[in-house]
Amino acid sequence: MLSRRTGWNLAGNRLAARLDAARSAGRPLLDLAESNPTRAGLAWPADALGAALSDPRIAAYDPEPRGLPAAREAVAAYLAARGHAVDPGRIVLTASTSEGYALLLKLLCDPGDEVLVPAPSYPLLDLLADLESVRLVRYPLRYDGAWHLDVPALEAAVTASTRAVVVVSPSNPTGAVLGAAEREAIDRLCAARDLALVGDEVFADTALVPPAGVLGASRALAFHLSGLSKVCGLPQVKAAWIAAGGPEAPVAAALERLEVIADAYLSISGPAQLALPRLLADRERFLGPLRARLAANRAALAAAASGAPFDALPSAGGWSAVLRIGETIDEEGLCLALLDDGVAVQPGFFYDFERAGHLVVSLLAPPDAFAAGLARVRDRVARAAAGIWDPK
Amino acid sequence: MLSRRTGWNLAGNRLAARLDAARSAGRPLLDLAESNPTRAGLAWPADALGAALSDPRIAAYDPEPRGLPAAREAVAAYLAARGHAVDPGRIVLTASTSEGYALLLKLLCDPGDEVLVPAPSYPLLDLLADLESVRLVRYPLRYDGAWHLDVPALEAAVTASTRAVVVVSPSNPTGAVLGAAEREAIDRLCAARDLALVGDEVFADTALVPPAGVLGASRALAFHLSGLSKVCGLPQVKAAWIAAGGPEAPVAAALERLEVIADAYLSISGPAQLALPRLLADRERFLGPLRARLAANRAALAAAASGAPFDALPSAGGWSAVLRIGETIDEEGLCLALLDDGVAVQPGFFYDFERAGHLVVSLLAPPDAFAAGLARVRDRVARAAAGIWDPK
Ligand SMILES: Cc1ncc(COP(=O)(O)O)c(C=O)c1O
Ligand SMILES: Cc1ncc(COP(=O)(O)O)c(C=O)c1O
Repeated sequence: MLSRRTGWNLAGNRLAARLDAARSAGRPLLDLAESNPTRAGLAWPADALGAALSDPRIAAYDPEPRGLPAAREAVAAYLAARGHAVDPGRIVLTASTSEGYALLLKLLCDPGDEVLVPAPSYPLLDLLADLESVRLVRYPLRYDGAWHLDVPALEAAVTASTRAVVVVSPSNPTGAVLGAAEREAIDRLCAARDLALVGDEVFADTALVPPAGVLGASRALAFHLSGLSKVCGLPQVKAAWIAAGGPEAPVAAALERLEVIADAYLSISGPAQLALPRLLADRERFLGPLRARLAANRAALAAAASGAPFDALPSAGGWSAVLRIGETIDEEGLCLALLDDGVAVQPGFFYDFERAGHLVVSLLAPPDAFAAGLARVRDRVARAAAGIWDPK
Repeated sequence: MLSRRTGWNLAGNRLAARLDAARSAGRPLLDLAESNPTRAGLAWPADALGAALSDPRIAAYDPEPRGLPAAREAVAAYLAARGHAVDPGRIVLTASTSEGYALLLKLLCDPGDEVLVPAPSYPLLDLLADLESVRLVRYPLRYDGAWHLDVPALEAAVTASTRAVVVVSPSNPTGAVLGAAEREAIDRLCAARDLALVGDEVFADTALVPPAGVLGASRALAFHLSGLSKVCGLPQVKAAWIAAGGPEAPVAAALERLEVIADAYLSISGPAQLALPRLLADRERFLGPLRARLAANRAALAAAASGAPFDALPSAGGWSAVLRIGETIDEEGLCLALLDDGVAVQPGFFYDFERAGHLVVSLLAPPDAFAAGLARVRDRVARAAAGIWDPK
């Protein structure tokens, strides 16, 4: 009696179950898999957040399908600071980036349509696409000393059913940042094939090189996605946005429908909309310490990688890093063994790497824990590479 | 390039546009179409709401797909007070009842499947169903001195593609309340035809006779929907819930998938989840004044209807009432004329009545405005019935 689209195999994954158990057991864990900023010592003070959520105007409910004008203006100001002049009329608020994706899938796709998504990438879209009866088709990011888009491979993946191309920049987990030439190529491709360009730019504020945002695309209908979850480290507030870019006529047609879609859910809370201008303006309260944390952990990773049995792949942004451990070591076995050693990391297969032999570490961990965790990873990878798997 | 499922005719409706214009023009309007409690003098004080949203624990983000246990326990306590013993494990939090519907459509339906919905009814589900590529099929509520379900007609509407039956109790706009015999009949029908029973019970706390809740169904997989929007008069908080009832095995299978669906969106905010127990426990702060308001306006309506050129149809709950004006008067013309008279009411066609000749009034208006508005409705209907349409 339940739908086919939700007919997942729910026989939970062994590693995820063990990680949950380890986290909730409360025994010491060097958690290099934690991506929740509020659990990594980067949380906002409750009083500042509470004050923002207690605006006197919260007593009234003002249902505005695109979101309160003041909140959309605040997002426009944020985008302007990022180099994109966007009319607040082109912005639609959502409860999360995840919801933003869902609304775009509805706007762009009918059941059976396809969306191109990068591999490797954080698997956020898999469930969302199932729930819209949309098919995801992977296009490869390739590594040859740096990560880059394989534009011919991307083009080859386009079919008559393709409706959109998703780029994630900076990418999770690789940290690859879309460059101007890549954006130009995708913009042209999307315009030529009548595809929308969707840019997940939640990590833009941590890019180490200037990212070419999708709102700089001039030919294709483009959508930038982001939100307070990653820009302010406030996933609990549930405030995010879609900003549309590209030629006026398709943008207007898209926004008209997007407004109706948003009106069906109206899922961002009034208090979050009223708080958004204050929280977003105050983002350096989070981003400052975050950037310091990321820089410290990047330096620690570079140090740990020198002479180590893994490569730390270069990355230009984001909250995570990729270790290449070689294809002969079983990723899941290694992650389980590391859990026994008191260290949590993620296996590459979780992110759909083209080849085996990667680990993903979160750069959010407190620097001491990060360095200590890396030392154990180094040790464990060396032993595994030598064929030794028994506990120490 | 945009989806067929969003290919609506957006050539806005004349009456809705005129009502919006009248509301925002700020000239005096007796608004008997307002269903937003925060605009009807029934808003919570901002400080009490702000205090609930400023719990010190809001600094941390605890993503729980079904919602925080304390919030689910608070919902269970609310349901217990309504006569339903429900395990908190059978409750899933959502940002709104609208989102609750969307999650259930995904859980129960694939694109092309059908859901049975009552007519007349508030047209909330039309957009939501389009967005899930699900087809709504109407079954009639019939009026013969009282509203009741036409069970044979409902049964006749079931096809091989039907997946669920929605009941709204108390109904918006008729105020009909599901009785025990009706629930029994629907429960049997759903169980026999392998359909889920979805009960929109957002207005349950205003029922004037004891409603038979869908959680009392024992054979079919049943889902109760409600939320703070109508239970506490707090639509801006964005906190609602789904509670599952019925036989253990299908409930467990449904909840397992519903958890994964909820996990894809996680759209209810942390502060709303933390505030929910306090707000819900304090619901009489809203419900007390609300019930007094509804009772006063029901009495005013009964008084106004005596000897009037319309019938006030009896209703057993909810926030609205139906006036029968006779099939010869054009509903839209009458509503537009009433707007010129400074009174907003809704036409029956907005709610899909089987026959023409109804107006719907909100019982939320302040009693003075309600009585004054009704006097003008009475006058205008009398003139229209006599064929006089020109402004006075
Ligand atoms: C690349 C990327 N986009 C989006 C999200 C989700 O953001 P939100 O919390 O706004 O749904 C994540 C979460 O980890 C992410 O890694
Ligand atoms: C019968 C009914 N159900 C649900 C809703 C929507 O509730 P929510 O604000 O929780 O989405 C409404 C809104 O008017 C309604 O009339």
